[in-house]
Amino acid sequence: MRMVDIIEKKRNGEALTNDELDYFVSGVTDGSLPDYQISALLMAIYFRGMTEEETIALTKLMSRSGECADLDALGPQTADKHSTGGVGDKTTLIAAPIAAAVGVKIAKMSGRGLGFTGGTVDKLQSIPNYKVRLNPKEFIKIVQKTGLSVVGQTGNFAPADKKLYALRDVTATVESLPLIASSIMSKKLAAGAKSVVLDVKYGSGAFMHDRKKAEALAEIMVKIGNACGRKTTAYITNMDAPLGFCVGNTLEVAEAAEVLKGKNVPDLKVLSLSLAAGMASLSLGIPRDRAKALCADALCGGRAYNKFLEWIAAQGGDISVFNDLESFTKAKYSARLCADRDGYIERLDALTVGHVSALLGAGRARIEDEVDLTAGIRLFKKPGDDVKKGDALAELQSGTVKDFRDALKMLSRAFKFSDEKPKLPPIIYSVI
Amino acid sequence: MRMVDIIEKKRNGEALTNDELDYFVSGVTDGSLPDYQISALLMAIYFRGMTEEETIALTKLMSRSGECADLDALGPQTADKHSTGGVGDKTTLIAAPIAAAVGVKIAKMSGRGLGFTGGTVDKLQSIPNYKVRLNPKEFIKIVQKTGLSVVGQTGNFAPADKKLYALRDVTATVESLPLIASSIMSKKLAAGAKSVVLDVKYGSGAFMHDRKKAEALAEIMVKIGNACGRKTTAYITNMDAPLGFCVGNTLEVAEAAEVLKGKNVPDLKVLSLSLAAGMASLSLGIPRDRAKALCADALCGGRAYNKFLEWIAAQGGDISVFNDLESFTKAKYSARLCADRDGYIERLDALTVGHVSALLGAGRARIEDEVDLTAGIRLFKKPGDDVKKGDALAELQSGTVKDFRDALKMLSRAFKFSDEKPKLPPIIYSVI
Repeated sequence: MRMVDIIEKKRNGEALTNDELDYFVSGVTDGSLPDYQISALLMAIYFRGMTEEETIALTKLMSRSGECADLDALGPQTADKHSTGGVGDKTTLIAAPIAAAVGVKIAKMSGRGLGFTGGTVDKLQSIPNYKVRLNPKEFIKIVQKTGLSVVGQTGNFAPADKKLYALRDVTATVESLPLIASSIMSKKLAAGAKSVVLDVKYGSGAFMHDRKKAEALAEIMVKIGNACGRKTTAYITNMDAPLGFCVGNTLEVAEAAEVLKGKNVPDLKVLSLSLAAGMASLSLGIPRDRAKALCADALCGGRAYNKFLEWIAAQGGDISVFNDLESFTKAKYSARLCADRDGYIERLDALTVGHVSALLGAGRARIEDEVDLTAGIRLFKKPGDDVKKGDALAELQSGTVKDFRDALKMLSRAFKFSDEKPKLPPIIYSVI
Repeated sequence: MRMVDIIEKKRNGEALTNDELDYFVSGVTDGSLPDYQISALLMAIYFRGMTEEETIALTKLMSRSGECADLDALGPQTADKHSTGGVGDKTTLIAAPIAAAVGVKIAKMSGRGLGFTGGTVDKLQSIPNYKVRLNPKEFIKIVQKTGLSVVGQTGNFAPADKKLYALRDVTATVESLPLIASSIMSKKLAAGAKSVVLDVKYGSGAFMHDRKKAEALAEIMVKIGNACGRKTTAYITNMDAPLGFCVGNTLEVAEAAEVLKGKNVPDLKVLSLSLAAGMASLSLGIPRDRAKALCADALCGGRAYNKFLEWIAAQGGDISVFNDLESFTKAKYSARLCADRDGYIERLDALTVGHVSALLGAGRARIEDEVDLTAGIRLFKKPGDDVKKGDALAELQSGTVKDFRDALKMLSRAFKFSDEKPKLPPIIYSVI
């Protein structure tokens, strides 16, 4: 088999066989294929796409290109969730304890984030003494005991994806549906959970701005998951505005705790409950309505919050911080943005809020950058809210940035006002 | 400027600016751009194409990426010809002496060929003592004295093309019109002649099987040439059957000498005269009809043959070989193919003849391979000819291959017979 023939075949719009894809993925993994042939094939795939069958085969091969997590000790009720990423997305911190409270086993590995805020693991590191590194035995033991554990990613999962992603990033081949789907799903497959719930976001603050593209991505990912023996479902959710009222690392952990304690943050609560119900429905094998009722009960009755505390404590985290969220979330510097007019908030652009968050130090551009855990934005008003001139719209905070002028100016542009109460899109558009 | 942005722009179907192309060609030339980004851009160009303006800018930049031949000492009447390659194409050996005989200055550098036979330089090396390496001073001096010289390519001409071609070859991005055109023309521009005649072949034995594609290639190459200050014209010519009766290295030199001596080999003579007239018309600034008459006169009157001998002798070649072409072309081993039926030859597939030629040792697959100069095929019948069962169709010869069974079997498949005299396409389809 010659790589140039494989490239030519894809270039001509033909589907590659499993053997050809195996040759490709093996060559990527063991380094025997030169980068220039890999990137030529990636560009051909960008233009020609892949059939469902090809995409499934590619993902399967990529998922097996390195280590795979062994969750057998946890039985068949393991579940995982994945979000394609958004601004203020702390749903894992809420949905995982809810699901665990109803009997789902969640052994989750989470990456450090590149983006507007850190990833789930960065957020968890806001909690004093929380251990993100556990050895596999400790990890499994905590899940067996509490029902959930979230640790930083270790091990060599889907190395073919790492290599391909690095090349895609510098060759303008990121935005290809089969390549995005295989990248996400190969890692989820290697992570070992038997059920997978995908939160595929669309809108200004999402990777996919277009709803139809998000649906297409969700569809193929669900097909891949199911074809590879994982019960998989996807929620297509809106990301035009930030999720909840808090964006940042410590701030998001605190907001998650508040929701678990019973605070009603509509979009965040609805979505977290749905994702938890999705995991419960798949892994416990019960209808989604029944799963939703169980999850709502676990949340309202305080069992989900107790599960949260149990989990955090099991990983060494100091749960006393949740008794005084104000001092937990306090930052060195802060500033307020106030409304300069009366009216309704029609839009609050998630992407701009994300950029402000990054500007304040909450995110990282390179994997080795430090994240300012206290940096972020606390929103007081969201789309649909009625505002009077002078009302506080948001508070910005940072442990490193003293001068908030640029951030305030940028954030003010994120708010769009109208005189009439706007009609807002539902947080969950559809479920696949 | 970032290469990834340039790739993305082309991927999205936008035209690149001169500055962006300059960044690309400079990065290719100095090695600062990684191969994987170059090949991703090449694949994007394969799918998106290039505008005329882009193709011209790219070619100009590539032509200046290394050394350029300095032919100023030869005045304004320098001409060059280029063939996209075919089977039995020895037109340079005939057209160049004809053109020189009417006053054109031909200082030609020719590569060693990769293909069914060697290149023009390999063919010339069939002549004992012919020097293919001359220093630039000797080279120019011979052209000044005799009107023509053909040497092997030296110097670092269009290094960006060398690099790009090597990558295209292994990434399935050879067959892109703007990339083919810029590759050919960048080298022609660097070679320095003021007038350029292109022989763009289509058909089974040509790089382009399709006539329309050949025309499109010819058109853009003529535009590039003229836009870069070279008088340029292109002949779209047929390559379904081999050109002339001989395929090989020594065999083709001998056939060229025969035509120059007055033998009528219709397709070869018509094409060589036209290409010579093309060069004469452009470089002497005379109408094509007038140029054709002058060239025909030089050929018929023997002046072209004398010019040929003068040139070969000036480069040290032993011209006595042309007195006895039979011993000149004699090979160690030979075999004949005879007709197994009566009829007309309807087709003689050039590509298959080319493969047979390679099988006999006349060509090379890698630049370091040795060419068997005596190997080749002497055809006795060509399309349109009337054949009786038992007539000799061809003689195969080789200095290295003793067993002709495979070659004979293959060659017999190249001949297609019919009961009616076939209608043959003209050798020259059109002129641009």
